[in-house]
Amino acid sequence: MTGRFITFEGIDGSGKSTQARLLADALRAKGHDAVLTREPGGSPGADEIRRLVLEGDPDRWSAETELLLFTAARRDHLERLIEPSLAAGKVVVCDRFADSTRMYQGLSRGDLRAKVDALHDLMIGREPDLTILIDMDPATGLARAKGRNGTEERFEDFGLDLQAKMRAGFLALAKEFAPRFRVIDGDRPPEAVAAEVEAVVLKALA
Amino acid sequence: MTGRFITFEGIDGSGKSTQARLLADALRAKGHDAVLTREPGGSPGADEIRRLVLEGDPDRWSAETELLLFTAARRDHLERLIEPSLAAGKVVVCDRFADSTRMYQGLSRGDLRAKVDALHDLMIGREPDLTILIDMDPATGLARAKGRNGTEERFEDFGLDLQAKMRAGFLALAKEFAPRFRVIDGDRPPEAVAAEVEAVVLKALA
Repeated sequence: MTGRFITFEGIDGSGKSTQARLLADALRAKGHDAVLTREPGGSPGADEIRRLVLEGDPDRWSAETELLLFTAARRDHLERLIEPSLAAGKVVVCDRFADSTRMYQGLSRGDLRAKVDALHDLMIGREPDLTILIDMDPATGLARAKGRNGTEERFEDFGLDLQAKMRAGFLALAKEFAPRFRVIDGDRPPEAVAAEVEAVVLKALA
Repeated sequence: MTGRFITFEGIDGSGKSTQARLLADALRAKGHDAVLTREPGGSPGADEIRRLVLEGDPDRWSAETELLLFTAARRDHLERLIEPSLAAGKVVVCDRFADSTRMYQGLSRGDLRAKVDALHDLMIGREPDLTILIDMDPATGLARAKGRNGTEERFEDFGLDLQAKMRAGFLALAKEFAPRFRVIDGDRPPEAVAAEVEAVVLKALA
Protein backbone atom coordinates (compact mmCIF):
# COMPACT_ATOMS: atom_id res chain seq x y z
CA MET A 1 0.00 0.00 0.00
CA THR A 2 1.26 3.45 -0.87
CA GLY A 3 1.23 6.20 1.75
CA ARG A 4 -0.35 9.63 1.80
CA PHE A 5 1.38 12.97 1.55
CA ILE A 6 -0.22 15.77 3.58
CA THR A 7 1.17 19.30 3.64
CA PHE A 8 0.42 22.36 5.77
CA GLU A 9 0.59 25.85 4.33
CA GLY A 10 -0.22 29.31 5.60
CA ILE A 11 1.24 32.69 6.40
CA ASP A 12 3.81 33.05 9.16
CA GLY A 13 2.21 32.89 12.60
CA SER A 14 -0.81 30.96 11.31
CA GLY A 15 -0.02 28.06 13.62
CA LYS A 16 0.64 25.55 10.83
CA SER A 17 3.73 24.06 12.51
CA THR A 18 1.77 23.41 15.72
CA GLN A 19 -1.09 21.95 13.71
CA ALA A 20 1.26 19.69 11.71
CA ARG A 21 2.67 18.32 14.98
CA LEU A 22 -0.77 17.85 16.55
CA LEU A 23 -1.98 16.03 13.43
CA ALA A 24 1.03 13.68 13.42
CA ASP A 25 0.36 12.91 17.12
CA ALA A 26 -3.34 12.31 16.46
CA LEU A 27 -2.62 10.03 13.50
CA ARG A 28 -0.17 7.96 15.57
CA ALA A 29 -2.79 7.69 18.35
CA LYS A 30 -5.14 6.21 15.73
CA GLY A 31 -2.52 3.64 14.69
CA HIS A 32 -1.19 5.37 11.54
CA ASP A 33 2.54 5.30 10.84
CA ALA A 34 3.04 9.07 10.55
CA VAL A 35 6.26 10.90 9.64
CA LEU A 36 6.43 14.57 10.66
CA THR A 37 8.79 16.77 8.64
CA ARG A 38 9.16 20.34 7.43
CA GLU A 39 10.64 22.54 4.71
CA PRO A 40 12.96 24.15 3.96
CA GLY A 41 15.10 21.28 5.16
CA GLY A 42 13.76 17.94 6.36
CA SER A 43 16.77 15.76 5.51
CA PRO A 44 20.42 16.23 6.58
CA GLY A 45 21.47 17.49 3.12
CA ALA A 46 18.43 19.74 2.79
CA ASP A 47 19.12 21.17 6.25
CA GLU A 48 22.65 22.09 5.13
CA ILE A 49 21.27 23.85 2.06
CA ARG A 50 18.65 25.58 4.24
CA ARG A 51 21.41 26.99 6.43
CA LEU A 52 23.32 28.16 3.36
CA VAL A 53 20.24 30.01 2.08
CA LEU A 54 18.94 31.51 5.32
CA GLU A 55 22.14 32.53 7.08
CA GLY A 56 23.95 35.77 6.34
CA ASP A 57 22.92 38.85 4.39
CA PRO A 58 19.34 38.55 3.05
CA ASP A 59 20.55 39.89 -0.31
CA ARG A 60 23.42 37.48 -0.68
CA TRP A 61 21.42 35.32 -3.13
CA SER A 62 19.24 36.52 -5.99
CA ALA A 63 15.65 35.26 -6.13
CA GLU A 64 16.67 32.87 -8.94
CA THR A 65 19.66 31.41 -7.08
CA GLU A 66 17.57 31.05 -3.93
CA LEU A 67 14.90 29.24 -5.96
CA LEU A 68 17.52 26.79 -7.28
CA LEU A 69 18.92 26.19 -3.78
CA PHE A 70 15.47 25.56 -2.29
CA THR A 71 14.68 23.22 -5.18
CA ALA A 72 17.94 21.31 -4.53
CA ALA A 73 16.95 21.02 -0.84
CA ARG A 74 13.44 19.83 -1.81
CA ARG A 75 14.85 17.25 -4.21
CA ASP A 76 17.07 15.85 -1.44
CA HIS A 77 14.20 15.84 1.08
CA LEU A 78 11.93 14.13 -1.45
CA GLU A 79 14.47 11.43 -2.37
CA ARG A 80 15.78 10.72 1.10
CA LEU A 81 12.65 10.98 3.27
CA ILE A 82 9.33 11.68 1.54
CA GLU A 83 9.35 9.14 -1.32
CA PRO A 84 10.80 6.24 0.74
CA SER A 85 8.24 6.92 3.50
CA LEU A 86 5.35 6.98 1.02
CA ALA A 87 6.66 3.79 -0.64
CA ALA A 88 6.62 2.15 2.82
CA GLY A 89 2.94 3.08 3.21
CA LYS A 90 3.46 5.84 5.77
CA VAL A 91 1.55 9.11 6.15
CA VAL A 92 3.97 12.00 5.62
CA VAL A 93 2.94 15.26 7.32
CA CYS A 94 5.04 18.15 6.00
CA ASP A 95 5.07 21.73 7.31
CA ARG A 96 5.40 23.72 4.05
CA PHE A 97 6.15 22.29 0.60
CA ALA A 98 6.06 23.51 -3.01
CA ASP A 99 3.08 25.84 -2.43
CA SER A 100 5.30 27.93 -0.14
CA THR A 101 7.80 28.28 -3.00
CA ARG A 102 4.98 29.25 -5.36
CA MET A 103 4.11 31.97 -2.83
CA TYR A 104 7.41 33.21 -1.44
CA GLN A 105 9.64 32.93 -4.50
CA GLY A 106 6.80 33.39 -6.99
CA LEU A 107 5.30 36.47 -5.37
CA SER A 108 7.47 38.20 -2.80
CA ARG A 109 10.66 38.57 -4.82
CA GLY A 110 9.70 39.35 -8.38
CA ASP A 111 7.31 37.56 -10.69
CA LEU A 112 9.10 34.23 -10.85
CA ARG A 113 6.00 32.05 -10.80
CA ALA A 114 6.51 30.72 -14.35
CA LYS A 115 10.09 29.69 -13.51
CA VAL A 116 8.95 28.23 -10.17
CA ASP A 117 6.40 26.06 -12.00
CA ALA A 118 8.77 24.96 -14.76
CA LEU A 119 11.48 24.07 -12.25
CA HIS A 120 8.99 22.14 -10.11
CA ASP A 121 7.76 20.15 -13.12
CA LEU A 122 11.32 19.42 -14.24
CA MET A 123 13.00 18.46 -10.97
CA ILE A 124 10.31 17.69 -8.34
CA GLY A 125 7.06 16.58 -9.95
CA ARG A 126 5.42 15.37 -6.74
CA GLU A 127 2.28 17.14 -5.43
CA PRO A 128 0.68 16.45 -2.03
CA ASP A 129 -2.41 14.27 -1.81
CA LEU A 130 -3.90 16.78 0.60
CA THR A 131 -2.94 20.34 1.58
CA ILE A 132 -4.28 21.99 4.71
CA LEU A 133 -4.23 25.79 4.42
CA ILE A 134 -4.44 27.37 7.88
CA ASP A 135 -6.11 30.66 7.01
CA MET A 136 -5.50 33.56 9.35
CA ASP A 137 -6.01 37.30 9.69
CA PRO A 138 -2.67 38.81 8.58
CA ALA A 139 -2.40 41.15 11.60
CA THR A 140 -2.93 38.29 14.06
CA GLY A 141 -0.45 36.09 12.21
CA LEU A 142 2.16 38.82 12.12
CA ALA A 143 1.80 39.55 15.85
CA ARG A 144 2.17 35.85 16.65
CA ALA A 145 5.18 35.43 14.35
CA LYS A 146 6.93 38.46 15.82
CA GLY A 147 6.33 37.32 19.38
CA ARG A 148 8.01 34.00 18.72
CA ASN A 149 11.62 33.00 19.17
CA GLY A 150 13.67 31.34 16.47
CA THR A 151 11.63 32.66 13.57
CA GLU A 152 13.01 32.76 10.05
CA GLU A 153 13.53 36.50 9.90
CA ARG A 154 14.22 36.30 6.18
CA PHE A 155 10.55 35.57 5.65
CA GLU A 156 8.93 37.36 8.54
CA ASP A 157 10.36 40.82 8.31
CA PHE A 158 8.20 42.04 5.47
CA GLY A 159 5.33 43.58 7.46
CA LEU A 160 1.57 43.59 7.27
CA ASP A 161 1.11 44.49 3.59
CA LEU A 162 3.10 41.48 2.52
CA GLN A 163 1.32 39.22 5.04
CA ALA A 164 -1.99 40.34 3.49
CA LYS A 165 -0.66 39.63 -0.01
CA MET A 166 0.53 36.24 1.12
CA ARG A 167 -2.84 35.36 2.61
CA ALA A 168 -4.53 36.32 -0.66
CA GLY A 169 -1.90 34.35 -2.57
CA PHE A 170 -2.44 31.19 -0.52
CA LEU A 171 -6.21 31.50 -0.97
CA ALA A 172 -5.63 31.85 -4.73
CA LEU A 173 -3.50 28.69 -4.70
CA ALA A 174 -6.29 26.92 -2.82
CA LYS A 175 -8.59 27.77 -5.75
CA GLU A 176 -6.00 26.88 -8.38
CA PHE A 177 -5.41 23.46 -6.83
CA ALA A 178 -8.90 23.07 -5.33
CA PRO A 179 -9.10 19.25 -5.38
CA ARG A 180 -6.23 18.81 -2.92
CA PHE A 181 -6.70 21.95 -0.77
CA ARG A 182 -8.77 22.31 2.41
CA VAL A 183 -8.97 25.81 3.92
CA ILE A 184 -9.26 25.79 7.72
CA ASP A 185 -10.01 28.88 9.82
CA GLY A 186 -6.93 29.33 12.02
CA ASP A 187 -8.38 32.24 14.02
CA ARG A 188 -9.58 29.95 16.82
CA PRO A 189 -7.97 28.19 19.79
CA PRO A 190 -5.40 25.63 18.59
CA GLU A 191 -7.39 22.66 19.92
CA ALA A 192 -10.47 23.73 17.92
CA VAL A 193 -8.35 24.08 14.76
CA ALA A 194 -6.71 20.71 15.47
CA ALA A 195 -10.08 18.97 15.84
CA GLU A 196 -11.21 20.21 12.43
CA VAL A 197 -7.87 19.33 10.80
CA GLU A 198 -8.06 15.81 12.25
CA ALA A 199 -11.62 15.31 11.03
CA VAL A 200 -10.74 16.53 7.52
CA VAL A 201 -7.66 14.32 7.32
CA LEU A 202 -9.28 11.19 8.71
CA LYS A 203 -12.06 11.58 6.17
CA ALA A 204 -9.46 11.87 3.39
CA LEU A 205 -7.55 8.83 4.66
CA ALA A 206 -10.68 6.66 5.02
CA MET B 1 30.99 47.71 -26.25
CA THR B 2 30.02 44.28 -24.96
CA GLY B 3 32.73 41.84 -23.86
CA ARG B 4 33.54 38.31 -24.96
CA PHE B 5 32.99 35.11 -23.03
CA ILE B 6 35.64 32.42 -23.62
CA THR B 7 35.50 29.03 -21.90
CA PHE B 8 37.98 26.17 -21.63
CA GLU B 9 36.83 22.57 -21.54
CA GLY B 10 38.54 19.20 -21.56
CA ILE B 11 39.10 16.03 -19.56
CA ASP B 12 40.90 16.17 -16.22
CA GLY B 13 44.64 16.56 -16.69
CA SER B 14 44.24 18.11 -20.15
CA GLY B 15 45.95 21.28 -18.98
CA LYS B 16 42.94 23.55 -19.51
CA SER B 17 43.42 25.42 -16.23
CA THR B 18 47.02 26.25 -17.15
CA GLN B 19 45.93 27.29 -20.63
CA ALA B 20 43.13 29.50 -19.28
CA ARG B 21 45.68 31.29 -17.06
CA LEU B 22 48.21 31.65 -19.87
CA LEU B 23 45.52 33.04 -22.19
CA ALA B 24 44.38 35.62 -19.61
CA ASP B 25 48.03 36.71 -19.17
CA ALA B 26 48.55 36.94 -22.94
CA LEU B 27 45.35 38.96 -23.42
CA ARG B 28 46.37 41.41 -20.69
CA ALA B 29 49.80 41.76 -22.31
CA LYS B 30 47.97 42.77 -25.52
CA GLY B 31 45.96 45.40 -23.64
CA HIS B 32 42.69 43.50 -23.19
CA ASP B 33 40.83 43.78 -19.88
CA ALA B 34 40.69 40.04 -19.09
CA VAL B 35 38.94 38.40 -16.13
CA LEU B 36 40.11 34.86 -15.26
CA THR B 37 37.62 32.67 -13.44
CA ARG B 38 36.60 29.02 -13.08
CA GLU B 39 33.73 26.68 -12.28
CA PRO B 40 32.42 25.17 -10.16
CA GLY B 41 32.65 28.34 -8.08
CA GLY B 42 33.97 31.66 -9.32
CA SER B 43 32.04 33.98 -6.97
CA PRO B 44 31.92 33.90 -3.14
CA GLY B 45 28.43 32.36 -3.08
CA ALA B 46 29.24 29.87 -5.83
CA ASP B 47 32.39 28.86 -3.96
CA GLU B 48 30.30 28.10 -0.87
CA ILE B 49 27.96 25.94 -2.94
CA ARG B 50 30.98 24.25 -4.56
CA ARG B 51 32.27 23.27 -1.11
CA LEU B 52 28.86 21.94 -0.12
CA VAL B 53 28.77 19.74 -3.25
CA LEU B 54 32.34 18.50 -3.31
CA GLU B 55 33.06 17.90 0.38
CA GLY B 56 32.03 14.75 2.19
CA ASP B 57 30.76 11.39 0.94
CA PRO B 58 30.61 11.30 -2.90
CA ASP B 59 27.15 9.71 -2.65
CA ARG B 60 25.70 12.30 -0.32
CA TRP B 61 23.87 14.02 -3.19
CA SER B 62 21.96 12.38 -6.01
CA ALA B 63 22.86 13.34 -9.57
CA GLU B 64 19.71 15.49 -9.73
CA THR B 65 20.41 17.36 -6.48
CA GLU B 66 24.03 17.89 -7.53
CA LEU B 67 22.82 19.27 -10.86
CA LEU B 68 20.55 21.76 -9.06
CA LEU B 69 23.36 22.84 -6.72
CA PHE B 70 25.82 23.33 -9.59
CA THR B 71 23.16 25.30 -11.47
CA ALA B 72 22.61 27.51 -8.40
CA ALA B 73 26.37 28.10 -8.23
CA ARG B 74 26.49 28.92 -11.96
CA ARG B 75 23.58 31.34 -11.65
CA ASP B 76 25.37 33.19 -8.84
CA HIS B 77 28.68 33.23 -10.76
CA LEU B 78 26.88 34.48 -13.87
CA GLU B 79 25.00 37.27 -12.06
CA ARG B 80 27.81 38.45 -9.82
CA LEU B 81 30.87 38.15 -12.07
CA ILE B 82 30.36 37.02 -15.68
CA GLU B 83 27.45 39.24 -16.81
CA PRO B 84 28.71 42.44 -15.13
CA SER B 85 32.19 41.87 -16.62
CA LEU B 86 30.76 41.31 -20.10
CA ALA B 87 28.56 44.39 -19.72
CA ALA B 88 31.71 46.38 -18.87
CA GLY B 89 33.33 45.22 -22.12
CA LYS B 90 35.78 42.78 -20.54
CA VAL B 91 37.00 39.44 -21.86
CA VAL B 92 35.94 36.71 -19.44
CA VAL B 93 38.11 33.57 -19.53
CA CYS B 94 36.41 30.73 -17.64
CA ASP B 95 37.91 27.32 -16.82
CA ARG B 96 34.87 25.02 -17.33
CA PHE B 97 31.27 26.15 -17.84
CA ALA B 98 27.98 24.55 -18.91
CA ASP B 99 29.65 22.07 -21.30
CA SER B 100 31.26 20.41 -18.26
CA THR B 101 27.80 19.96 -16.74
CA ARG B 102 26.52 18.54 -20.04
CA MET B 103 29.38 16.03 -19.79
CA TYR B 104 29.74 15.21 -16.11
CA GLN B 105 26.12 15.35 -14.96
CA GLY B 106 24.72 14.40 -18.37
CA LEU B 107 26.96 11.41 -19.00
CA SER B 108 28.83 10.13 -15.97
CA ARG B 109 25.92 9.77 -13.54
CA GLY B 110 22.92 8.55 -15.47
CA ASP B 111 21.35 9.92 -18.60
CA LEU B 112 20.40 13.34 -17.33
CA ARG B 113 21.28 15.27 -20.49
CA ALA B 114 17.66 16.27 -21.25
CA LYS B 115 17.24 17.63 -17.70
CA VAL B 116 20.64 19.36 -17.91
CA ASP B 117 19.57 21.12 -21.11
CA ALA B 118 16.12 22.11 -19.85
CA LEU B 119 17.57 23.47 -16.60
CA HIS B 120 20.24 25.42 -18.48
CA ASP B 121 17.64 26.96 -20.80
CA LEU B 122 15.38 27.86 -17.87
CA MET B 123 17.88 29.29 -15.35
CA ILE B 124 21.17 30.11 -17.17
CA GLY B 125 20.59 30.78 -20.85
CA ARG B 126 24.06 32.17 -21.54
CA GLU B 127 26.43 30.31 -23.92
CA PRO B 128 30.09 31.23 -24.44
CA ASP B 129 31.13 33.17 -27.53
CA LEU B 130 34.08 30.82 -27.93
CA THR B 131 34.94 27.48 -26.31
CA ILE B 132 38.45 26.04 -26.43
CA LEU B 133 38.45 22.26 -26.08
CA ILE B 134 41.89 21.05 -25.02
CA ASP B 135 41.86 17.55 -26.52
CA MET B 136 44.09 14.97 -24.90
CA ASP B 137 44.83 11.25 -24.90
CA PRO B 138 42.85 9.90 -21.92
CA ALA B 139 45.79 7.91 -20.47
CA THR B 140 48.07 10.96 -20.52
CA GLY B 141 45.37 13.13 -18.99
CA LEU B 142 44.64 10.64 -16.24
CA ALA B 143 48.34 10.26 -15.35
CA ARG B 144 48.69 14.04 -15.16
CA ALA B 145 45.54 14.45 -13.07
CA LYS B 146 46.57 11.73 -10.63
CA GLY B 147 50.06 13.18 -10.19
CA ARG B 148 48.67 16.54 -9.18
CA ASN B 149 47.82 17.86 -5.75
CA GLY B 150 44.52 19.40 -4.86
CA THR B 151 42.53 17.64 -7.56
CA GLU B 152 38.78 17.29 -7.33
CA GLU B 153 38.76 13.59 -6.44
CA ARG B 154 35.01 13.43 -6.94
CA PHE B 155 35.59 13.81 -10.64
CA GLU B 156 38.97 12.21 -11.10
CA ASP B 157 38.57 8.86 -9.44
CA PHE B 158 36.65 7.23 -12.24
CA GLY B 159 39.55 5.65 -14.18
CA LEU B 160 40.61 5.33 -17.78
CA ASP B 161 37.36 4.03 -19.28
CA LEU B 162 35.49 7.05 -18.08
CA GLN B 163 38.26 9.42 -19.20
CA ALA B 164 37.95 7.88 -22.68
CA LYS B 165 34.16 8.31 -22.60
CA MET B 166 34.59 11.92 -21.48
CA ARG B 167 37.00 12.68 -24.31
CA ALA B 168 34.54 11.24 -26.80
CA GLY B 169 31.76 13.20 -25.12
CA PHE B 170 33.60 16.51 -25.34
CA LEU B 171 34.42 15.87 -29.01
CA ALA B 172 30.71 15.17 -29.58
CA LEU B 173 29.82 18.49 -27.90
CA ALA B 174 32.36 20.22 -30.16
CA LYS B 175 30.39 18.88 -33.15
CA GLU B 176 27.00 19.70 -31.61
CA PHE B 177 28.04 23.30 -30.93
CA ALA B 178 30.53 23.56 -33.82
CA PRO B 179 30.25 27.33 -34.42
CA ARG B 180 31.64 28.25 -31.00
CA PHE B 181 34.06 25.33 -30.43
CA ARG B 182 37.75 25.14 -31.35
CA VAL B 183 39.50 21.81 -30.70
CA ILE B 184 43.18 22.20 -29.79
CA ASP B 185 45.64 19.29 -29.53
CA GLY B 186 46.76 19.31 -25.88
CA ASP B 187 49.33 16.51 -26.30
CA ARG B 188 52.18 18.96 -26.80
CA PRO B 189 54.34 21.17 -24.55
CA PRO B 190 52.19 23.79 -22.78
CA GLU B 191 53.87 26.70 -24.56
CA ALA B 192 53.05 25.20 -27.98
CA VAL B 193 49.44 24.70 -26.93
CA ALA B 194 49.32 28.24 -25.52
CA ALA B 195 50.62 29.73 -28.77
CA GLU B 196 47.85 28.05 -30.78
CA VAL B 197 45.17 29.04 -28.22
CA GLU B 198 46.34 32.65 -28.33
CA ALA B 199 46.30 32.73 -32.13
CA VAL B 200 42.79 31.24 -32.26
CA VAL B 201 41.44 33.66 -29.65
CA LEU B 202 43.05 36.78 -31.09
CA LYS B 203 41.55 35.89 -34.47
CA ALA B 204 38.12 35.52 -32.86
CA LEU B 205 38.48 38.83 -30.97
CA ALA B 206 39.66 40.74 -34.06
